[in-house]
Amino acid sequence: MAEFIDLRSDTVTRPTAGMREAMASAEVGDDVYGEDPTVAALEAEVAALFGHEAALFAPSGSMANQIALQLVVPPGDELLCDADAHVVTYEIGAAAAYGGISSRTWPAVGADVDPEVVAGMVRPDGYFAVPTRAIAVEQTHNRGGGGVIPLATLRELRRVADDHGLALHCDGARIWHAHVADGVPPAEYGALFDTLSVCLSKGLGAPVGSLVVGSAEKIARARFVRKRMGGGMRQVGILAAAGRYALANHVERLAEDHAKAARLAEAVAPYGVLATAVRTNIVPLDLTKHALDAPALAAAARERGLLISVLGPRTARLVTHMDVSNDQIDRSAETLTTLLRA
Amino acid sequence: MAEFIDLRSDTVTRPTAGMREAMASAEVGDDVYGEDPTVAALEAEVAALFGHEAALFAPSGSMANQIALQLVVPPGDELLCDADAHVVTYEIGAAAAYGGISSRTWPAVGADVDPEVVAGMVRPDGYFAVPTRAIAVEQTHNRGGGGVIPLATLRELRRVADDHGLALHCDGARIWHAHVADGVPPAEYGALFDTLSVCLSKGLGAPVGSLVVGSAEKIARARFVRKRMGGGMRQVGILAAAGRYALANHVERLAEDHAKAARLAEAVAPYGVLATAVRTNIVPLDLTKHALDAPALAAAARERGLLISVLGPRTARLVTHMDVSNDQIDRSAETLTTLLRA
Amino acid sequence: MAEFIDLRSDTVTRPTAGMREAMASAEVGDDVYGEDPTVAALEAEVAALFGHEAALFAPSGSMANQIALQLVVPPGDELLCDADAHVVTYEIGAAAAYGGISSRTWPAVGADVDPEVVAGMVRPDGYFAVPTRAIAVEQTHNRGGGGVIPLATLRELRRVADDHGLALHCDGARIWHAHVADGVPPAEYGALFDTLSVCLSKGLGAPVGSLVVGSAEKIARARFVRKRMGGGMRQVGILAAAGRYALANHVERLAEDHAKAARLAEAVAPYGVLATAVRTNIVPLDLTKHALDAPALAAAARERGLLISVLGPRTARLVTHMDVSNDQIDRSAETLTTLLRA
Amino acid sequence: MAEFIDLRSDTVTRPTAGMREAMASAEVGDDVYGEDPTVAALEAEVAALFGHEAALFAPSGSMANQIALQLVVPPGDELLCDADAHVVTYEIGAAAAYGGISSRTWPAVGADVDPEVVAGMVRPDGYFAVPTRAIAVEQTHNRGGGGVIPLATLRELRRVADDHGLALHCDGARIWHAHVADGVPPAEYGALFDTLSVCLSKGLGAPVGSLVVGSAEKIARARFVRKRMGGGMRQVGILAAAGRYALANHVERLAEDHAKAARLAEAVAPYGVLATAVRTNIVPLDLTKHALDAPALAAAARERGLLISVLGPRTARLVTHMDVSNDQIDRSAETLTTLLRA
Repeated sequence: MAEFIDLRSDTVTRPTAGMREAMASAEVGDDVYGEDPTVAALEAEVAALFGHEAALFAPSGSMANQIALQLVVPPGDELLCDADAHVVTYEIGAAAAYGGISSRTWPAVGADVDPEVVAGMVRPDGYFAVPTRAIAVEQTHNRGGGGVIPLATLRELRRVADDHGLALHCDGARIWHAHVADGVPPAEYGALFDTLSVCLSKGLGAPVGSLVVGSAEKIARARFVRKRMGGGMRQVGILAAAGRYALANHVERLAEDHAKAARLAEAVAPYGVLATAVRTNIVPLDLTKHALDAPALAAAARERGLLISVLGPRTARLVTHMDVSNDQIDRSAETLTTLLRA
Repeated sequence: MAEFIDLRSDTVTRPTAGMREAMASAEVGDDVYGEDPTVAALEAEVAALFGHEAALFAPSGSMANQIALQLVVPPGDELLCDADAHVVTYEIGAAAAYGGISSRTWPAVGADVDPEVVAGMVRPDGYFAVPTRAIAVEQTHNRGGGGVIPLATLRELRRVADDHGLALHCDGARIWHAHVADGVPPAEYGALFDTLSVCLSKGLGAPVGSLVVGSAEKIARARFVRKRMGGGMRQVGILAAAGRYALANHVERLAEDHAKAARLAEAVAPYGVLATAVRTNIVPLDLTKHALDAPALAAAARERGLLISVLGPRTARLVTHMDVSNDQIDRSAETLTTLLRA
Repeated sequence: MAEFIDLRSDTVTRPTAGMREAMASAEVGDDVYGEDPTVAALEAEVAALFGHEAALFAPSGSMANQIALQLVVPPGDELLCDADAHVVTYEIGAAAAYGGISSRTWPAVGADVDPEVVAGMVRPDGYFAVPTRAIAVEQTHNRGGGGVIPLATLRELRRVADDHGLALHCDGARIWHAHVADGVPPAEYGALFDTLSVCLSKGLGAPVGSLVVGSAEKIARARFVRKRMGGGMRQVGILAAAGRYALANHVERLAEDHAKAARLAEAVAPYGVLATAVRTNIVPLDLTKHALDAPALAAAARERGLLISVLGPRTARLVTHMDVSNDQIDRSAETLTTLLRA
Repeated sequence: MAEFIDLRSDTVTRPTAGMREAMASAEVGDDVYGEDPTVAALEAEVAALFGHEAALFAPSGSMANQIALQLVVPPGDELLCDADAHVVTYEIGAAAAYGGISSRTWPAVGADVDPEVVAGMVRPDGYFAVPTRAIAVEQTHNRGGGGVIPLATLRELRRVADDHGLALHCDGARIWHAHVADGVPPAEYGALFDTLSVCLSKGLGAPVGSLVVGSAEKIARARFVRKRMGGGMRQVGILAAAGRYALANHVERLAEDHAKAARLAEAVAPYGVLATAVRTNIVPLDLTKHALDAPALAAAARERGLLISVLGPRTARLVTHMDVSNDQIDRSAETLTTLLRA
């Protein structure tokens, strides 16, 4: 895909030279035996960053989320989340298929959450109805256009969870972006959640890896669940080294990606296709009122060397990241305005 | 509970003398071997009534629904329904726990369904997202106050299902009430759904039993799934005889129960607690703006010899049925107005 | 099947006049609300009989077993049983499909169990291997030719279970036969197991019904699991009344069925087809060395008015029960010897 | 663990300098999008090696096995394997927990399999019993002391599978060892199985990675299942590069590890603790008749700088691999004989 400008996702980034060097020289051990020092160091760093006792490396954001959900919702019991959440959309039914987790959803409108709506959905623990056990939110929100849930809203959700004895999980695959956009320290987010998943392989640019974050007791159980899920890996310090490098070097620079997204948003806004205001590195396009539908726009862009994602018949997505230059952003904006103008 | 007027549910009815006589003289056989003539007759009658090829007896409405869902949604794939649906509320997570079925929900507002909202939630079959396989509706709607989904709406939902290659399931535990309220023949409903569950043990007054309705191929598979669920019973023609009696004698009389509910509704309406207009045999109470909350109202009513259901902190429910007389309805109305007026 | 002598199974018995009368006059209530007095009486009787605190009515032996297994083995953890056990053969994978229960099996040789072999299979609770949580045995053993596990063996298994912190479950669908054959009081069996399932619908002649037996805490959870499995029924006292009648009238008479089986065994023994010694009401035929295979024998018998079960290419089964007379047994023996002699 | 001689497992090997160089310079892409050229090359190589159409990279041997099992056994249906198989022991119940796969086992005696015993366990597809769908074998066999199943036995198992319409899966985590020990080309093994898993991270010395091998259709489905399991990784060509290097450089050298194991076996044999003849790189110790039990032997060895695995109270295991030198083998033999002699 080297000849294309790739705005499909921030997952497409390739490791930098420095990151490759970190991997090549990583000290490793058998992590299934708990003996990989680089993995242990990464887990300790991430736990500390979010103010939790422990963390666990996982091969993907999906597995990190699913492990966490299996920790907080017993089979047959219930998770509440929004209808566009990654955990019930892009993890292909894993919560139900593998965790036996029942789910009901509130309507997704960007990254917005109304804690009172969520509170109204909770079913009590008892004999007649499915017992609700956890609420999950996504920060930033992928299908929600990279939107950021305000800290005040999260605090209210924490109160709802406490009132009903529920766990609160954060799918924080892109929580780094929320941290950069809103200036909220990771530990402040961490304090609000029973479990979080965070990803090294999206905006942070590591090739592979996510972590589950939580209490020491939960993470001990997570290690068991990860093995059952097939996520136990051996000398995976190779990948953890890339993650440590990413944490040290690629967090604060996300502001640049946000600026790139803002420039793209500004370019396409006049054509009435911006789904929501752009806060982070995702530009969500709503083509409901445009002549081109999403597959047509993506196909036309591709012909001009630009790759974008189709999320629905009339929904498309641009994602900025460290492997796309400011110059490429300008060319992308030009391509898109040409197509949208037509 | 003989000393109480019991409006908690229409499940509380006891078999009549005629029904007991039908059970006592029922011809039976081993139905796990497919040799109970009374069960076979009931299954044939119900299938014919809804214009489908076959039907299968099940020990409960929950099992009938869950068997049907397992027929139309493979483990890990997705069901769409409303957030108050019996299949994701009162079946205690069975769809996820036992069927591995992932679910997303649209907001419940009585029995209303907006087919365009449902269409907008469908995820395409593919590699990246959970594939949506079925839509379920509930007719009449239990938590939706016994509301009836109009035939025109159901036809639009059928079109949505066809457009996306989805199955359409009807939780028709109280579809008899919809038939009586709207005058729609069961076969007209039947034609719109791939699978239906119907119940003999609620308004129809049989002690036990529901049926899954569908194509011959689906019902052959349903027989296998029922055995796996532990629903295979032996000389269960005893119960099927009660079901046949109920079908022959207790369907059209549901109009009386609807009239009783209307009288109750009329009595409580002035106190601003009627959640929705009453169409069938359920009177939903919304106590949001009333001094008494639902547990308090239920407790006070109980002291006066009246049993009602609490569905939530501010939500209660009255259900009329064949074991409550017009006189008892009058006394219930009096009790309730006394309490609501205070 | 009235024209046939039916030795396929003891599940085919039809309710007697006395049993029908008991059902016709049964006092009932809504058992999902815990208000059916006949069900409550049956549950109390069966619990007392086995010396346990509580019992729960279920629509089938399969469901009773599966509920019990879900109580003692968390999803993903392990059950040990023999390779011919009903719970891993005739319940169609429900333990894995619905309970997520992993299983390993020891080789089935009749009803024999070697407690040391079982002990050797236990995996310790830990991080690397599946944790074993329970052992299940079947008393009497269906595919094991109605064999009875000696009390001394069961006591050794109890010790194995205690040594490893495991639960011990008894699939006691035909435990009544063991009680009659070995003269062991039900409570003596009951004392050895954490959970038992017992069936009213096989040798005891009730149309439908099994019970799970265990501690009050376990049975409270069982009630929840039964609802999730779709086994919650309403005025099911109708069936419980038949069960109470069966308990009062049909237990000790099983000795007659055992005598019938012994006569059949005596008749076929000279042809070298008796798989094991006959202890209860099952006559297992091993046709490995006979000219007729099992389907051929069953077909030929059917032509002569006798129904028998085929369990495998060279395995067949005769089961005696209260609906087959001594005269019919004589005729069956004659039919079989005629066929085996040929 | 650098100060110890580590014979616990061949999973503990660390990447060599050449392998690290291959990783550092690997060309990568987003493999969830199917765009990582190094992963694609590895998958093609492995598929070709085993004579199959396609292969899929997975983060662990457990996940590779579980994906394959989910391809060949629908939820609730049955897998047959031996009671010591990795798939029902060290994958922590994942087949049942996540695949809903029911299992029955034949007794494990080293790597021996009697195809007639397996054939006798198969349950027919039908209504009454769990349908058997697949047989799994392990080549070489981990708990079976690194034993090799003879090609002739595998061919008979293939015939059994064909006779009953079953799939045959090979847990080939160490199939490379069988290839080297018996001189059977991988493709000859490949031709006998519907699906195989093979591992790069044990004897071959790569840090992480296994592959599922099968038909193009199965592997397309495997890709979907892998995503649901959380095994979709992004620029994982980093790890695939190590795998390619291992395939090119570390297969035939396994003969050295086998020689090392033979020397250890020779040293301990006089003490009557060799469980089975040693064929590959595993030395299984049976301490049933020895004064030291397995934990005591392991603890004493550890004090002398030697790490070994405890598999049971009286069972221990030594595994040779590329990170242990001939000199270290000699010292290990000396340590063990000292301890066993005492």
